Amino acid sequence: MALIVHKYGGTSMGSVERIRNVATRVAKWHKAGHQLVVVPSAMSGQTNRLLALAREISEQPNPRELDMITSTGEQVSVGLLSLALQEEGVDAVSYAGWQVAVKTDSAFTKARISEIDDKRVLADLETGKVVVIAGFQGVDPEGHITTLGRGGSDTSAVAIAAVMRADECLIYTDVDGVYTTDPRVVEEARRLDRVTFEEMLEMASLGSKVLQIRSVEFSGKYRVRTRVLSSLIDPLMPLDDEMRSGTLLITFEENEKMEQAVISGIAFQRDEARIAVIGVPDKPGIAYQILGPVADANIDVDMIIQNTSIEGKTDFTFTVGRSDYQSAMGILTHHADENINAEVVLGDPKVSKVSVVGVGIRSHVGIASKMFRTLSEENINIQMISTSEIKISVLIDEKYMELAVRALHKAFELDQA
Amino acid sequence: MALIVHKYGGTSMGSVERIRNVATRVAKWHKAGHQLVVVPSAMSGQTNRLLALAREISEQPNPRELDMITSTGEQVSVGLLSLALQEEGVDAVSYAGWQVAVKTDSAFTKARISEIDDKRVLADLETGKVVVIAGFQGVDPEGHITTLGRGGSDTSAVAIAAVMRADECLIYTDVDGVYTTDPRVVEEARRLDRVTFEEMLEMASLGSKVLQIRSVEFSGKYRVRTRVLSSLIDPLMPLDDEMRSGTLLITFEENEKMEQAVISGIAFQRDEARIAVIGVPDKPGIAYQILGPVADANIDVDMIIQNTSIEGKTDFTFTVGRSDYQSAMGILTHHADENINAEVVLGDPKVSKVSVVGVGIRSHVGIASKMFRTLSEENINIQMISTSEIKISVLIDEKYMELAVRALHKAFELDQA
Repeated sequence: MALIVHKYGGTSMGSVERIRNVATRVAKWHKAGHQLVVVPSAMSGQTNRLLALAREISEQPNPRELDMITSTGEQVSVGLLSLALQEEGVDAVSYAGWQVAVKTDSAFTKARISEIDDKRVLADLETGKVVVIAGFQGVDPEGHITTLGRGGSDTSAVAIAAVMRADECLIYTDVDGVYTTDPRVVEEARRLDRVTFEEMLEMASLGSKVLQIRSVEFSGKYRVRTRVLSSLIDPLMPLDDEMRSGTLLITFEENEKMEQAVISGIAFQRDEARIAVIGVPDKPGIAYQILGPVADANIDVDMIIQNTSIEGKTDFTFTVGRSDYQSAMGILTHHADENINAEVVLGDPKVSKVSVVGVGIRSHVGIASKMFRTLSEENINIQMISTSEIKISVLIDEKYMELAVRALHKAFELDQA
Repeated sequence: MALIVHKYGGTSMGSVERIRNVATRVAKWHKAGHQLVVVPSAMSGQTNRLLALAREISEQPNPRELDMITSTGEQVSVGLLSLALQEEGVDAVSYAGWQVAVKTDSAFTKARISEIDDKRVLADLETGKVVVIAGFQGVDPEGHITTLGRGGSDTSAVAIAAVMRADECLIYTDVDGVYTTDPRVVEEARRLDRVTFEEMLEMASLGSKVLQIRSVEFSGKYRVRTRVLSSLIDPLMPLDDEMRSGTLLITFEENEKMEQAVISGIAFQRDEARIAVIGVPDKPGIAYQILGPVADANIDVDMIIQNTSIEGKTDFTFTVGRSDYQSAMGILTHHADENINAEVVLGDPKVSKVSVVGVGIRSHVGIASKMFRTLSEENINIQMISTSEIKISVLIDEKYMELAVRALHKAFELDQA
């Protein structure tokens, strides 16, 4: 008997028929003798419907009230899934985040989990119940409902698996695993049987939207055995076959191919925006003065570059998600004069990031030059470059993004197993 | 400065435009210097949508899970209304039932409020906030979400007004007050300026669905000054005019007309079902043996009649809401042989109840005979009769219901002020 956490995305929960399918699959696992905790997302379309209602009333809706509203989508899902499980003859009980409780900080709409109390869940599991927990949501120290941000149900599932020391965390989604890149962009994209946490982290953060980035962090940090697989395969497929499908997240140590060909995939992030703060005095603390107010507004900054200074002045460039562009520009132009003494703040909301991801990239010098040559052959101008141990990212004009991804996928022979 | 509770029904919350209207009205009250607690229902159609989803999955959905699902409708409403209030420049905060907390028993789908903790709400009011509380819902001692049953938002509002000793509880609905009968059935129906709690109780329980019956009980028991009025009148109407519209619930003592013409209205309940347990031994405890299991199943029994016994046997007849008919019949036929020794259990799910309601009916002997004569002149057969201090009810074939209501409304001259 093992303790298994299942997570189902919005598409998998998208209709009564699909919810029944999920129940059939969960019941199969339960009947095989396993303890099951299931974390569903809201039915697809519901969160957007609720957001649209809120935004019709308020252009900049209060985040606390927004969480009050959007958290209901998952609450409906857990109730419906419990009913479907009961119809399968499985004893099931549902909980909202606050009932567990999944405790978070108070950063509404992008809260972070601080603690999960699993006593109630454990007690239910002991009595043979399947426990269905609303993903994406929690409760802050003052008892306000919070949400974890888009894709937060992945994080909920992995965090619950980590706290409860689950044997497996299975993320059921509408794709059948992690690909070398998005198959909608490159037809020849191939499914990876295994991918390291670190690569996955880059793939997720860089736009291969299979798993939310924070869930991968949890997964790696707490060594949760996590598999991404399809909810569309036959729910009555034998367990052994199901466990061989999808993509397994592995550790560096499990990666026996480390010395070989290193590129796992091409990731991209379409909706980026670039902000350049030009001609700022090159003095200690300047980076903090620029980025502090942006971080205070809970805006995630991605790539950051500071040029070598000339005559005591430097340029400072960074990227944010496109939806945060207006607020970030507002904050910076507000601070540009008084605190920063910048000459000018320039912005471009139409840029995309493309990355080559693979374990040990840094030690294979040929990879960067191959990437730059490939882009140059397609006449694609590189606006920013940033590198890490396992990826090289470039920022380019949005309109060349798909061309770049296809060219790099081919150049690194990712279409070949 | 007064403490005012507003309650808005599903129709009043039915669209973004209407929610804005509600916010405009609440803001007007708040700006006039009053402290406001607002209790909205779910947007019209939402509760039915959620129930339909649940019933598509399960014919007899588990009540706990049903409450998990349906309570989300009001949670969305409080969030949206808070946003709309903030757009009006009013500081507003929303709470789900459990956050207040509105404590209830564990009778899922028809829970009863046991206690309301108003500390958090009072603290918010002190800082000038408008507090928006989800109606219809609460939390049981084990932390499960409960709902109060259909129309439960009225009960929430009046209970909150009672606990907080509010100066007024204004129930905004899509009708502009309490009528002598349903205007959809009788065109000449007239709005009553005032009605006693006791009459209202009968009117509400008998099908004039302006207020949920339990809310009227609370209203009378805790002497909450309650007014039913229309949410469709101009939200910027002067406060004084608004307070003269609708129907005010008054006490017996406030009713100066007590010795005069006594009939306030004709109430009806279309969806009734009759169950007759024929030929049961007339011995002590038989009524309990028949109705105990029905009550245990949380089915509300309405009219109850036991005939004079003949040769040690009696017939026992009662009515239930039509939606409970199947379960009640199931329970009774199951128990009929073993415990009750009934000869046969007969049922008729197509009956309606029509009632004449007014203070002091019992002391005016002419009223019952006038009622029976009127029905007889229309050739309507009376199946059961039941009376109280302030009403006379008859059970008739469903198909004569509207005819009976019209004839009685005319006979008692309710079309004339």
